[in-house]
Amino acid sequence: MVRLRAHNIAVSLDGFATGEGQSLDAPFGHAGGRLMSWFFPTHTFVRASGHESESVGGGSHGVDDAFAAAAWQGIGAEIMGRRKFGPQQGPWEDESWTGWWGDEPPFHTPVVVLTHHPRSDVAVGETTFLFRDLSPVDALSLAAAEADGLDVRLGGGPTVIREFLEADLVDHLHVVVVPILLGRGERLWDGLEGIEERFDIEATASPSGVVHYVWTRKPRA
Amino acid sequence: MVRLRAHNIAVSLDGFATGEGQSLDAPFGHAGGRLMSWFFPTHTFVRASGHESESVGGGSHGVDDAFAAAAWQGIGAEIMGRRKFGPQQGPWEDESWTGWWGDEPPFHTPVVVLTHHPRSDVAVGETTFLFRDLSPVDALSLAAAEADGLDVRLGGGPTVIREFLEADLVDHLHVVVVPILLGRGERLWDGLEGIEERFDIEATASPSGVVHYVWTRKPRA
Repeated sequence: MVRLRAHNIAVSLDGFATGEGQSLDAPFGHAGGRLMSWFFPTHTFVRASGHESESVGGGSHGVDDAFAAAAWQGIGAEIMGRRKFGPQQGPWEDESWTGWWGDEPPFHTPVVVLTHHPRSDVAVGETTFLFRDLSPVDALSLAAAEADGLDVRLGGGPTVIREFLEADLVDHLHVVVVPILLGRGERLWDGLEGIEERFDIEATASPSGVVHYVWTRKPRA
Repeated sequence: MVRLRAHNIAVSLDGFATGEGQSLDAPFGHAGGRLMSWFFPTHTFVRASGHESESVGGGSHGVDDAFAAAAWQGIGAEIMGRRKFGPQQGPWEDESWTGWWGDEPPFHTPVVVLTHHPRSDVAVGETTFLFRDLSPVDALSLAAAEADGLDVRLGGGPTVIREFLEADLVDHLHVVVVPILLGRGERLWDGLEGIEERFDIEATASPSGVVHYVWTRKPRA
Protein backbone atom coordinates (compact mmCIF):
# COMPACT_ATOMS: atom_id res chain seq x y z
CA MET A 1 0.00 0.00 0.00
CA VAL A 2 1.83 3.09 -1.24
CA ARG A 3 1.37 6.15 0.96
CA LEU A 4 1.64 9.77 -0.15
CA ARG A 5 3.64 11.79 2.36
CA ALA A 6 4.48 15.48 2.62
CA HIS A 7 7.29 16.49 4.99
CA ASN A 8 9.00 19.62 6.27
CA ILE A 9 6.29 21.94 4.96
CA ALA A 10 7.10 25.14 6.84
CA VAL A 11 4.54 27.88 7.43
CA SER A 12 4.55 31.07 9.43
CA LEU A 13 2.25 31.39 12.44
CA ASP A 14 -0.09 33.37 10.20
CA GLY A 15 -0.15 30.53 7.68
CA PHE A 16 2.14 31.57 4.82
CA ALA A 17 4.25 28.87 3.19
CA THR A 18 6.17 31.37 1.08
CA GLY A 19 6.60 35.11 1.27
CA GLU A 20 5.79 37.69 -1.36
CA GLY A 21 8.13 38.45 -4.27
CA GLN A 22 9.56 35.05 -5.13
CA SER A 23 12.46 35.09 -7.59
CA LEU A 24 15.54 33.16 -8.62
CA ASP A 25 17.51 34.85 -5.86
CA ALA A 26 14.71 34.69 -3.29
CA PRO A 27 12.81 31.40 -3.63
CA PHE A 28 10.84 32.18 -0.45
CA GLY A 29 10.33 35.87 -1.32
CA HIS A 30 10.52 38.32 1.57
CA ALA A 31 10.50 35.40 4.01
CA GLY A 32 14.14 34.76 3.12
CA GLY A 33 15.52 31.81 5.09
CA ARG A 34 13.31 32.38 8.11
CA LEU A 35 10.86 29.56 7.35
CA MET A 36 13.70 27.05 7.23
CA SER A 37 15.94 28.40 10.02
CA TRP A 38 14.92 25.45 12.25
CA PHE A 39 16.21 23.06 9.54
CA PHE A 40 19.68 24.46 8.83
CA PRO A 41 21.25 23.38 12.16
CA THR A 42 20.02 19.78 11.87
CA HIS A 43 22.29 16.84 11.15
CA THR A 44 20.04 15.99 8.21
CA PHE A 45 20.71 19.33 6.56
CA VAL A 46 24.41 19.49 7.47
CA ARG A 47 24.96 16.04 6.02
CA ALA A 48 22.88 16.72 2.88
CA SER A 49 24.83 19.90 2.28
CA GLY A 50 27.99 17.86 1.98
CA HIS A 51 29.67 19.76 4.79
CA GLU A 52 30.88 16.54 6.33
CA SER A 53 31.18 12.84 5.71
CA GLU A 54 28.32 10.53 6.62
CA SER A 55 30.30 9.04 9.45
CA VAL A 56 30.54 12.29 11.41
CA GLY A 57 27.60 13.31 13.58
CA GLY A 58 27.67 17.07 13.01
CA GLY A 59 24.58 19.16 13.43
CA SER A 60 21.75 18.80 15.93
CA HIS A 61 20.14 15.45 16.71
CA GLY A 62 17.03 16.59 18.57
CA VAL A 63 13.38 16.67 17.63
CA ASP A 64 13.88 18.97 14.63
CA ASP A 65 16.37 16.53 13.14
CA ALA A 66 14.15 13.53 13.85
CA PHE A 67 11.34 15.10 11.84
CA ALA A 68 13.65 16.39 9.12
CA ALA A 69 15.21 12.96 8.62
CA ALA A 70 11.84 11.20 8.29
CA ALA A 71 11.29 12.91 4.95
CA TRP A 72 13.97 10.71 3.40
CA GLN A 73 12.97 7.35 4.82
CA GLY A 74 11.19 4.80 2.64
CA ILE A 75 10.60 7.12 -0.30
CA GLY A 76 10.67 5.75 -3.87
CA ALA A 77 9.48 8.75 -5.88
CA GLU A 78 8.53 12.41 -5.48
CA ILE A 79 5.84 14.64 -6.93
CA MET A 80 6.61 18.35 -7.07
CA GLY A 81 5.15 21.45 -8.60
CA ARG A 82 6.93 23.23 -11.37
CA ARG A 83 7.81 26.18 -9.16
CA LYS A 84 9.77 23.92 -6.85
CA PHE A 85 11.79 22.75 -9.85
CA GLY A 86 12.61 26.24 -11.09
CA PRO A 87 11.58 29.88 -11.37
CA GLN A 88 10.56 29.78 -15.05
CA GLN A 89 6.99 30.33 -16.23
CA GLY A 90 5.19 29.39 -19.45
CA PRO A 91 6.72 27.17 -22.17
CA TRP A 92 10.20 25.77 -21.48
CA GLU A 93 12.37 28.05 -23.60
CA ASP A 94 15.61 26.74 -22.22
CA GLU A 95 15.92 23.08 -21.28
CA SER A 96 19.40 23.60 -19.87
CA TRP A 97 17.81 24.34 -16.47
CA THR A 98 17.82 21.07 -14.55
CA GLY A 99 16.77 22.34 -11.13
CA TRP A 100 18.41 24.10 -8.20
CA TRP A 101 20.39 21.14 -6.99
CA GLY A 102 23.50 20.77 -9.15
CA ASP A 103 24.95 17.53 -10.52
CA GLU A 104 23.55 15.24 -7.82
CA PRO A 105 20.07 16.31 -6.63
CA PRO A 106 19.10 14.95 -3.20
CA PHE A 107 16.18 12.85 -4.50
CA HIS A 108 17.93 9.79 -6.02
CA THR A 109 14.52 8.61 -7.33
CA PRO A 110 12.12 9.46 -10.14
CA VAL A 111 10.53 12.90 -9.62
CA VAL A 112 7.26 13.80 -11.33
CA VAL A 113 7.28 17.54 -12.08
CA LEU A 114 3.74 18.83 -12.67
CA THR A 115 3.65 21.29 -15.56
CA HIS A 116 1.19 22.24 -18.28
CA HIS A 117 4.09 22.65 -20.72
CA PRO A 118 5.71 19.62 -22.38
CA ARG A 119 9.37 18.91 -21.88
CA SER A 120 11.60 15.86 -22.29
CA ASP A 121 12.48 13.79 -19.25
CA VAL A 122 15.97 14.42 -17.94
CA ALA A 123 18.31 12.40 -15.74
CA VAL A 124 20.55 14.33 -13.36
CA GLY A 125 22.81 12.08 -11.33
CA GLU A 126 20.63 9.41 -9.74
CA THR A 127 17.45 11.48 -10.14
CA THR A 128 15.17 11.41 -13.17
CA PHE A 129 12.74 14.29 -13.67
CA LEU A 130 9.52 13.39 -15.51
CA PHE A 131 7.60 16.44 -16.76
CA ARG A 132 3.88 15.70 -16.92
CA ASP A 133 0.54 17.50 -17.23
CA LEU A 134 -1.53 15.29 -14.92
CA SER A 135 -4.35 15.51 -12.41
CA PRO A 136 -3.40 14.78 -8.79
CA VAL A 137 -4.81 11.25 -8.94
CA ASP A 138 -3.00 10.44 -12.18
CA ALA A 139 0.23 11.97 -10.94
CA LEU A 140 0.02 9.77 -7.87
CA SER A 141 -0.60 6.69 -10.02
CA LEU A 142 2.47 7.41 -12.09
CA ALA A 143 4.66 8.18 -9.09
CA ALA A 144 3.44 5.08 -7.23
CA ALA A 145 4.34 2.93 -10.25
CA GLU A 146 7.80 4.49 -10.26
CA ALA A 147 8.31 4.11 -6.50
CA ASP A 148 9.19 0.42 -6.55
CA GLY A 149 6.97 -0.44 -3.59
CA LEU A 150 8.07 2.46 -1.43
CA ASP A 151 6.12 5.61 -0.50
CA VAL A 152 5.74 8.74 -2.61
CA ARG A 153 6.84 12.11 -1.25
CA LEU A 154 4.71 15.16 -2.07
CA GLY A 155 7.36 17.81 -2.31
CA GLY A 156 5.34 21.02 -2.62
CA GLY A 157 5.07 23.95 -3.10
CA PRO A 158 1.97 25.04 -1.25
CA THR A 159 -0.34 25.04 -4.29
CA VAL A 160 0.49 21.40 -4.96
CA ILE A 161 0.02 20.45 -1.30
CA ARG A 162 -3.41 22.12 -1.28
CA GLU A 163 -4.51 20.41 -4.50
CA PHE A 164 -3.60 16.94 -3.20
CA LEU A 165 -5.23 17.63 0.17
CA GLU A 166 -8.42 18.77 -1.58
CA ALA A 167 -8.38 15.54 -3.58
CA ASP A 168 -7.94 13.58 -0.31
CA LEU A 169 -4.82 11.82 -1.57
CA VAL A 170 -2.45 12.69 1.28
CA ASP A 171 -1.79 10.02 3.92
CA HIS A 172 0.86 11.82 5.99
CA LEU A 173 1.40 15.55 6.35
CA HIS A 174 4.22 17.06 8.41
CA VAL A 175 3.86 20.82 8.82
CA VAL A 176 6.32 22.98 10.76
CA VAL A 177 4.85 26.17 12.21
CA VAL A 178 7.50 28.87 12.62
CA PRO A 179 6.71 31.64 15.14
CA ILE A 180 6.95 34.56 12.74
CA LEU A 181 4.25 36.70 11.11
CA LEU A 182 4.96 37.09 7.39
CA GLY A 183 1.80 39.06 6.68
CA ARG A 184 1.83 38.32 2.94
CA GLY A 185 2.67 35.58 0.48
CA GLU A 186 0.99 32.27 -0.34
CA ARG A 187 -1.18 30.66 2.31
CA LEU A 188 -0.99 26.90 2.84
CA TRP A 189 -4.42 26.35 4.39
CA ASP A 190 -6.77 28.31 2.11
CA GLY A 191 -9.79 26.43 0.81
CA LEU A 192 -9.32 23.45 3.14
CA GLU A 193 -12.06 24.10 5.71
CA GLY A 194 -12.83 21.04 7.80
CA ILE A 195 -10.32 18.61 6.29
CA GLU A 196 -8.79 18.06 9.74
CA GLU A 197 -11.71 15.70 10.43
CA ARG A 198 -10.09 13.17 8.09
CA PHE A 199 -6.86 13.11 10.12
CA ASP A 200 -5.41 12.27 13.49
CA ILE A 201 -3.22 15.22 14.46
CA GLU A 202 -0.28 15.38 16.84
CA ALA A 203 1.62 18.53 17.79
CA THR A 204 5.16 18.59 19.20
CA ALA A 205 6.84 21.79 20.35
CA SER A 206 10.59 21.98 19.75
CA PRO A 207 13.10 23.87 21.88
CA SER A 208 13.96 25.73 18.67
CA GLY A 209 10.59 27.47 18.88
CA VAL A 210 8.84 25.73 16.00
CA VAL A 211 5.93 23.33 16.39
CA HIS A 212 5.82 20.10 14.37
CA TYR A 213 2.37 18.91 13.33
CA VAL A 214 1.93 15.40 12.03
CA TRP A 215 -1.37 14.69 10.31
CA THR A 216 -2.07 11.00 9.76
CA ARG A 217 -4.97 10.08 7.51
CA LYS A 218 -7.61 8.05 9.35
CA PRO A 219 -8.35 4.64 7.84
CA ARG A 220 -10.62 5.01 4.83
CA ALA A 221 -13.97 3.28 5.17
CA MET B 1 4.64 48.81 36.45
CA VAL B 2 1.22 47.77 35.16
CA ARG B 3 1.35 45.15 32.42
CA LEU B 4 -1.26 44.59 29.73
CA ARG B 5 -2.00 40.88 29.30
CA ALA B 6 -4.18 38.94 26.88
CA HIS B 7 -4.99 35.32 27.73
CA ASN B 8 -6.83 32.34 26.27
CA ILE B 9 -7.07 33.88 22.79
CA ALA B 10 -8.00 30.85 20.71
CA VAL B 11 -7.36 30.65 16.98
CA SER B 12 -7.73 27.90 14.43
CA LEU B 13 -4.62 26.53 12.73
CA ASP B 14 -5.47 28.75 9.77
CA GLY B 15 -5.58 31.80 12.03
CA PHE B 16 -9.24 32.57 12.62
CA ALA B 17 -10.25 33.81 16.08
CA THR B 18 -13.95 33.65 15.27
CA GLY B 19 -15.93 31.95 12.56
CA GLU B 20 -18.26 33.52 10.06
CA GLY B 21 -21.87 34.42 10.90
CA GLN B 22 -21.64 35.63 14.49
CA SER B 23 -24.96 36.16 16.24
CA LEU B 24 -26.57 36.17 19.66
CA ASP B 25 -26.97 32.40 19.48
CA ALA B 26 -23.57 31.79 17.88
CA PRO B 27 -20.96 34.15 19.33
CA PHE B 28 -18.20 32.30 17.47
CA GLY B 29 -20.20 31.92 14.25
CA HIS B 30 -19.77 28.65 12.39
CA ALA B 31 -16.85 27.76 14.67
CA GLY B 32 -19.38 26.93 17.39
CA GLY B 33 -17.61 25.73 20.53
CA ARG B 34 -14.67 24.21 18.71
CA LEU B 35 -12.21 27.02 19.46
CA MET B 36 -12.82 26.62 23.20
CA SER B 37 -13.20 22.83 23.43
CA TRP B 38 -9.78 22.61 25.13
CA PHE B 39 -11.05 24.97 27.84
CA PHE B 40 -14.34 23.37 28.87
CA PRO B 41 -12.78 20.32 30.61
CA THR B 42 -10.42 22.46 32.75
CA HIS B 43 -10.86 22.95 36.47
CA THR B 44 -10.80 26.70 35.83
CA PHE B 45 -13.86 26.49 33.60
CA VAL B 46 -15.71 23.91 35.69
CA ARG B 47 -15.26 26.02 38.79
CA ALA B 48 -16.18 29.30 37.05
CA SER B 49 -19.32 27.67 35.69
CA GLY B 50 -20.49 27.05 39.22
CA HIS B 51 -20.79 23.34 38.61
CA GLU B 52 -19.09 22.64 41.90
CA SER B 53 -17.84 24.30 45.04
CA GLU B 54 -14.37 25.82 45.14
CA SER B 55 -13.16 23.14 47.48
CA VAL B 56 -13.69 20.31 45.01
CA GLY B 57 -11.03 19.67 42.44
CA GLY B 58 -13.20 18.75 39.49
CA GLY B 59 -12.03 19.21 35.95
CA SER B 60 -8.57 18.72 34.50
CA HIS B 61 -5.46 20.09 36.18
CA GLY B 62 -2.92 19.72 33.38
CA VAL B 63 -1.24 22.22 31.13
CA ASP B 64 -4.49 23.53 29.63
CA ASP B 65 -5.77 24.38 33.09
CA ALA B 66 -2.49 25.99 34.14
CA PHE B 67 -2.71 28.39 31.21
CA ALA B 68 -6.44 28.97 31.62
CA ALA B 69 -6.04 29.83 35.29
CA ALA B 70 -3.26 32.36 34.66
CA ALA B 71 -5.77 34.67 33.02
CA TRP B 72 -7.33 35.40 36.41
CA GLN B 73 -4.17 35.95 38.45
CA GLY B 74 -3.13 39.47 39.44
CA ILE B 75 -5.67 41.28 37.28
CA GLY B 76 -7.21 44.56 38.45
CA ALA B 77 -9.16 45.68 35.38
CA GLU B 78 -10.11 44.51 31.89
CA ILE B 79 -10.40 46.18 28.51
CA MET B 80 -12.79 44.58 26.03
CA GLY B 81 -14.31 45.41 22.69
CA ARG B 82 -17.98 46.12 22.41
CA ARG B 83 -18.65 42.88 20.56
CA LYS B 84 -17.37 40.89 23.50
CA PHE B 85 -19.88 42.72 25.71
CA GLY B 86 -22.86 42.06 23.46
CA PRO B 87 -24.16 41.50 19.95
CA GLN B 88 -25.70 44.97 19.47
CA GLN B 89 -24.42 47.43 16.87
CA GLY B 90 -24.76 51.22 16.58
CA PRO B 91 -26.29 53.43 19.31
CA TRP B 92 -27.37 51.69 22.51
CA GLU B 93 -31.14 51.54 22.06
CA ASP B 94 -31.71 49.30 25.04
CA GLU B 95 -29.53 49.71 28.13
CA SER B 96 -31.12 46.71 29.81
CA TRP B 97 -28.43 44.50 28.20
CA THR B 98 -25.67 44.13 30.77
CA GLY B 99 -23.58 41.46 29.09
CA TRP B 100 -23.70 37.69 28.63
CA TRP B 101 -22.75 36.83 32.17
CA GLY B 102 -25.84 37.16 34.37
CA ASP B 103 -25.97 38.71 37.85
CA GLU B 104 -22.35 38.05 38.77
CA PRO B 105 -19.97 38.41 35.82
CA PRO B 106 -16.63 36.65 36.24
CA PHE B 107 -14.55 39.85 36.17
CA HIS B 108 -15.05 41.31 39.68
CA THR B 109 -13.13 44.43 38.57
CA PRO B 110 -13.75 47.53 36.49
CA VAL B 111 -14.11 46.66 32.79
CA VAL B 112 -13.53 49.30 30.10
CA VAL B 113 -15.81 48.55 27.14
CA LEU B 114 -14.59 50.28 23.98
CA THR B 115 -17.49 51.75 22.01
CA HIS B 116 -18.05 54.77 19.82
CA HIS B 117 -21.56 55.18 21.27
CA PRO B 118 -22.11 56.80 24.69
CA ARG B 119 -23.75 54.88 27.51
CA SER B 120 -23.90 55.19 31.27
CA ASP B 121 -21.59 53.08 33.39
CA VAL B 122 -23.28 50.11 34.99
CA ALA B 123 -22.44 47.93 37.97
CA VAL B 124 -23.35 44.25 37.77
CA GLY B 125 -22.46 42.36 40.90
CA GLU B 126 -18.82 43.09 41.67
CA THR B 127 -18.07 44.21 38.09
CA THR B 128 -18.43 47.77 36.80
CA PHE B 129 -18.62 48.33 33.06
CA LEU B 130 -17.27 51.68 31.87
CA PHE B 131 -18.31 52.50 28.28
CA ARG B 132 -15.74 54.72 26.61
CA ASP B 133 -14.69 55.93 23.17
CA LEU B 134 -10.92 55.92 23.64
CA SER B 135 -7.73 55.22 21.71
CA PRO B 136 -5.79 52.13 22.82
CA VAL B 137 -3.26 54.20 24.76
CA ASP B 138 -5.95 56.20 26.56
CA ALA B 139 -7.99 53.08 27.28
CA LEU B 140 -4.92 51.51 28.86
CA SER B 141 -4.31 54.64 30.97
CA LEU B 142 -7.86 54.53 32.30
CA ALA B 143 -7.79 50.79 32.97
CA ALA B 144 -4.38 51.03 34.66
CA ALA B 145 -5.70 53.75 36.94
CA GLU B 146 -8.66 51.51 37.83
CA ALA B 147 -6.52 48.40 38.37
CA ASP B 148 -5.27 49.34 41.83
CA GLY B 149 -1.68 48.38 41.14
CA LEU B 150 -2.50 45.08 39.45
CA ASP B 151 -2.25 44.17 35.76
CA VAL B 152 -4.82 44.90 33.07
CA ARG B 153 -6.34 42.09 31.03
CA LEU B 154 -6.99 42.67 27.34
CA GLY B 155 -10.11 40.63 26.84
CA GLY B 156 -10.59 40.72 23.08
CA GLY B 157 -12.16 40.21 20.58
CA PRO B 158 -9.63 39.84 17.80
CA THR B 159 -10.02 43.38 16.46
CA VAL B 160 -9.16 44.81 19.85
CA ILE B 161 -6.19 42.47 20.27
CA ARG B 162 -4.85 43.52 16.87
CA GLU B 163 -5.25 47.25 17.60
CA PHE B 164 -3.35 47.01 20.88
CA LEU B 165 -0.61 44.86 19.30
CA GLU B 166 -0.24 47.40 16.50
CA ALA B 167 0.12 50.15 19.12
CA ASP B 168 2.78 48.02 20.89
CA LEU B 169 0.92 48.13 24.20
CA VAL B 170 0.74 44.39 24.90
CA ASP B 171 3.23 42.91 27.39
CA HIS B 172 1.94 39.34 27.53
CA LEU B 173 -0.01 37.45 24.90
CA HIS B 174 -1.27 33.90 25.37
CA VAL B 175 -2.66 32.39 22.16
CA VAL B 176 -4.07 28.88 21.90
CA VAL B 177 -3.84 27.30 18.46
CA VAL B 178 -6.56 24.71 17.91
CA PRO B 179 -5.90 22.09 15.19
CA ILE B 180 -8.94 22.86 13.04
CA LEU B 181 -9.27 24.70 9.74
CA LEU B 182 -12.16 27.18 9.90
CA GLY B 183 -11.58 28.59 6.43
CA ARG B 184 -13.49 31.83 7.09
CA GLY B 185 -14.15 34.33 9.82
CA GLU B 186 -12.00 36.99 11.46
CA ARG B 187 -8.24 36.52 11.38
CA LEU B 188 -6.20 37.36 14.46
CA TRP B 189 -2.85 38.01 12.80
CA ASP B 190 -3.70 40.26 9.86
CA GLY B 191 -1.67 43.45 9.55
CA LEU B 192 0.89 42.45 12.15
CA GLU B 193 3.86 41.50 9.95
CA GLY B 194 7.10 41.33 11.88
CA ILE B 195 5.81 42.15 15.36
CA GLU B 196 7.20 38.85 16.67
CA GLU B 197 10.60 40.57 16.77
CA ARG B 198 9.42 42.54 19.81
CA PHE B 199 8.64 39.36 21.78
CA ASP B 200 10.19 36.27 23.27
CA ILE B 201 7.96 33.37 22.24
CA GLU B 202 7.48 29.98 23.86
CA ALA B 203 5.31 27.18 22.49
CA THR B 204 3.92 24.30 24.57
CA ALA B 205 1.99 21.43 23.03
CA SER B 206 -0.80 20.01 25.16
CA PRO B 207 -2.02 16.40 25.15
CA SER B 208 -5.42 17.86 24.22
CA GLY B 209 -4.01 18.74 20.80
CA VAL B 210 -3.82 22.50 21.18
CA VAL B 211 -0.58 24.47 21.32
CA HIS B 212 -0.16 27.27 23.84
CA TYR B 213 1.96 30.21 22.71
CA VAL B 214 3.16 32.73 25.25
CA TRP B 215 4.53 35.96 23.82
CA THR B 216 6.46 38.06 26.36
CA ARG B 217 7.36 41.61 25.35
CA LYS B 218 11.14 42.14 25.34
CA PRO B 219 12.37 44.94 27.61
CA ARG B 220 11.79 48.29 25.99
CA ALA B 221 14.97 50.27 25.34
